[in-house]
Amino acid sequence: MEIINTRRSIRKYTDQSVSDELLVQLLQAAMNAPTARNMQEWKFVVVKNKELQKKMAEAMPNTHMSAHAGACIVVCGDTTIQPKAEYIYVDCGAAIENLLLEAHSLGLGCCWCAVGPNEDRIVPTKELLNLPEHYLPVANIAIGWPAEEKEENHRYDENKVTWVK
Amino acid sequence: MEIINTRRSIRKYTDQSVSDELLVQLLQAAMNAPTARNMQEWKFVVVKNKELQKKMAEAMPNTHMSAHAGACIVVCGDTTIQPKAEYIYVDCGAAIENLLLEAHSLGLGCCWCAVGPNEDRIVPTKELLNLPEHYLPVANIAIGWPAEEKEENHRYDENKVTWVK
Repeated sequence: MEIINTRRSIRKYTDQSVSDELLVQLLQAAMNAPTARNMQEWKFVVVKNKELQKKMAEAMPNTHMSAHAGACIVVCGDTTIQPKAEYIYVDCGAAIENLLLEAHSLGLGCCWCAVGPNEDRIVPTKELLNLPEHYLPVANIAIGWPAEEKEENHRYDENKVTWVK
Repeated sequence: MEIINTRRSIRKYTDQSVSDELLVQLLQAAMNAPTARNMQEWKFVVVKNKELQKKMAEAMPNTHMSAHAGACIVVCGDTTIQPKAEYIYVDCGAAIENLLLEAHSLGLGCCWCAVGPNEDRIVPTKELLNLPEHYLPVANIAIGWPAEEKEENHRYDENKVTWVK
């Protein structure tokens, strides 16, 4: 799939806004990812507020792109639905990848900024977004219309593969 | 993307074999997923050996489809490259989703069987595949030509989304 191979992290965005309709489309893609035992434990917080985005960027290192993005989507796991943190991480990883691919297919660019498992990011994220105690924020995805171009990925490394026949 | 919305877990496969070329294509897609700090810590074990697949299926509950699949790919994280298990899980989740989507786009069907964080699956997987101690097996993906059809996904739930404007 060309979309998988041409998707790259985009950290620079134009000032053009991202419509709610497109953001819902990204969330639809995210929620069509599989989850362990089909628990669908994700929760999403969509931030379209430049003041709050700026505070989020200031609170966390290396996430400056959040301030300038058209929107941010914070992907969380609900620990009352899925108590095993490892499943929350692996399930959110799959959901985020769907979101990134859908965004790329629409011409949008994203940057995936980790929140958990770093306590120094989890705490300010929960405070700034007023998240319930049982939400585990896994990542903050900055989304916007790309103001940079990147070349196709070629990360395949046969040394990472063992064949057993 | 239609591929995202039509992908489903496939647990029944025909007897038709899956070529190494197609499996490499799935691995290329998996390795084009992003990883935390671009560590690319994944390791993959491709199993195309019915006897070993049967042993894997017997050792782990609810993974009977592994025995009958054309191949299995066990997705692991290398803890010497990425020491944080949470990053291994979230990164492997993204890589696995790419693999599942690529498979679906090629007409293949997959079933994602969790290994970690369950010790009673990690231990037999490491033993049967003779994995190095520092590999963390996250999932076993059964892959084959579908012998069942499933309807499109519609899992979007607006109650899982909070908007902050």
